[in-house]
Amino acid sequence: MHILIAGLHAPHAPRLQSLLGPEHRVEGIPAFADSGEIAADVVVCNQINPQQAARLRCRLLQVPGAGWEQIACEALPAGLPVSNVHGHEVPIAEFTLHAVLEHQLQLWKYPSRLDAQAWAEVYKARPQHDEAWGKTLVLVGFGHIGQEIARRARAFGMRVVAVTRSGRAATEGPAAGLADETVAVAELASVLPRAQALVLCCPLDDSTRGLIGARQLALMPPGALLVNVARAEVVDEEALYHALTGGQLGRAALDVWYSYPKAGQTPAPPSRWPLHELPNVRGTPHISAITPALLERRYAFIAHNTMRVAQGLEPENVIYRSR
Amino acid sequence: MHILIAGLHAPHAPRLQSLLGPEHRVEGIPAFADSGEIAADVVVCNQINPQQAARLRCRLLQVPGAGWEQIACEALPAGLPVSNVHGHEVPIAEFTLHAVLEHQLQLWKYPSRLDAQAWAEVYKARPQHDEAWGKTLVLVGFGHIGQEIARRARAFGMRVVAVTRSGRAATEGPAAGLADETVAVAELASVLPRAQALVLCCPLDDSTRGLIGARQLALMPPGALLVNVARAEVVDEEALYHALTGGQLGRAALDVWYSYPKAGQTPAPPSRWPLHELPNVRGTPHISAITPALLERRYAFIAHNTMRVAQGLEPENVIYRSR
Repeated sequence: MHILIAGLHAPHAPRLQSLLGPEHRVEGIPAFADSGEIAADVVVCNQINPQQAARLRCRLLQVPGAGWEQIACEALPAGLPVSNVHGHEVPIAEFTLHAVLEHQLQLWKYPSRLDAQAWAEVYKARPQHDEAWGKTLVLVGFGHIGQEIARRARAFGMRVVAVTRSGRAATEGPAAGLADETVAVAELASVLPRAQALVLCCPLDDSTRGLIGARQLALMPPGALLVNVARAEVVDEEALYHALTGGQLGRAALDVWYSYPKAGQTPAPPSRWPLHELPNVRGTPHISAITPALLERRYAFIAHNTMRVAQGLEPENVIYRSR
Repeated sequence: MHILIAGLHAPHAPRLQSLLGPEHRVEGIPAFADSGEIAADVVVCNQINPQQAARLRCRLLQVPGAGWEQIACEALPAGLPVSNVHGHEVPIAEFTLHAVLEHQLQLWKYPSRLDAQAWAEVYKARPQHDEAWGKTLVLVGFGHIGQEIARRARAFGMRVVAVTRSGRAATEGPAAGLADETVAVAELASVLPRAQALVLCCPLDDSTRGLIGARQLALMPPGALLVNVARAEVVDEEALYHALTGGQLGRAALDVWYSYPKAGQTPAPPSRWPLHELPNVRGTPHISAITPALLERRYAFIAHNTMRVAQGLEPENVIYRSR
């Protein structure tokens, strides 16, 4: 098998090579060539434009993550399956609960160095912080990530509301019993007034782009927390900036951004509105999932899916197949 | 009923007064008088020396927290019951899990402001952090606080080891099933090599004072986390400083200290060794439990226990009764 791993993930070619063994060939390339066929048995990438998609000649397009909104599916050759990978729900859930606890604990209220004077003053003042216990957490999206967040939030005594396409509560399978309440995305406005923490963990598509705008943010309780581990474009950029500077939102933990660095282009800030400069924003550079354990789980699955294709089996986690 | 609330907790007298109503009298005093009887129906305080203890004339000594190591029990008048209060296990568990997640996420590795240049560089470098998932958390003490920490840590996929006096696993009651493993404190050394997070949440007494010294810290895996929400003296101060500066311990979250501010005394630092100046110490001024919800739960219980005494009933949560 010849496996081509392109773009941001190319540096992991040696890892995949060692998992597959010397009888297969894993090739890492920083970018696709400008013309000609892109030929391999399996192509691993998370970004492919229509011109590149049309030039693909392979048996599986493997996205090395969950999100596949940068794959030009409509331009793919007929019959080509596209698979994604999970395994990042564990670190993303940890990132999210950290953001929830950080928001409630407000440790920035306390002196960062407890010298004698600071210690005497703060011990006398006894400032108070808040608790996650009893708060309501609204999850927009209730797939692998949302479910792992719910499992942890419930252990903290939080009330979990899942916002899904259908609004039907799962009665069996891994999601059963994980949410206290499930509503359809069309009913989002009805739960926002209780959303002391609003966590976005849905795919980016036409139904979620701009889902959270000025009207939705205004419905949230004052001082609430927004966590975005989905895609930046789920939230209107300008509305988010105004909600954070105007005191409507208490805090945001943003791991996803409106503009990403591109090779060969002048560096640009991650958002047009200076969200990343606000003191009540925890802005991280799309790292919530990046742990050694995630990379192990991810490439173990990609090796497994590659071997399924080698054996003539149907790949797993097929999320799209062009007609 | 006449209730005397003394010392640090005196400012909460109006809260207790409003819970008990005008037929009772709640008196807040910053300190006990130097001589004469300390007379009331219920005395609320967490610190009383032998001279003061001998002068107590009351029906209940109510400690407004869990720890009662500053109560000179041996000097109390015969038959006087001492009660404590719980309810702080929820915020302390949240504080502890925040410390665990902070240690794993290592967000300080990322630029605090994502300007264009920082964003381009960090996105290319893709630094990795770690996961709580699969790590072992050792709890020294498995009372109310330890159990609430265990409940949450388990939801994160952590392995929980409870270190208790007896080492017998609870088979019924609230603690049943919360620990993956239970060992006696005499066996502590056998679990420390696996303690990626060591959380101290035990009472301070002769069996726990200095329990964690240089030998115990050296047994822990390199880079481990220590969380102390018990009392500072459970850990040898000098050994802790050397473990943190020498790279043996990765990080510590310390909410309890070796020296506390005292009214009328010159401010002193919280520890003789400058633990509070180390970059790998999250030092907080004994605030892990202080939330509005904790204070509501605490004074609701104190009012309840006071009314039991008023009605001639046995107080609840009796932890000591002098002979």
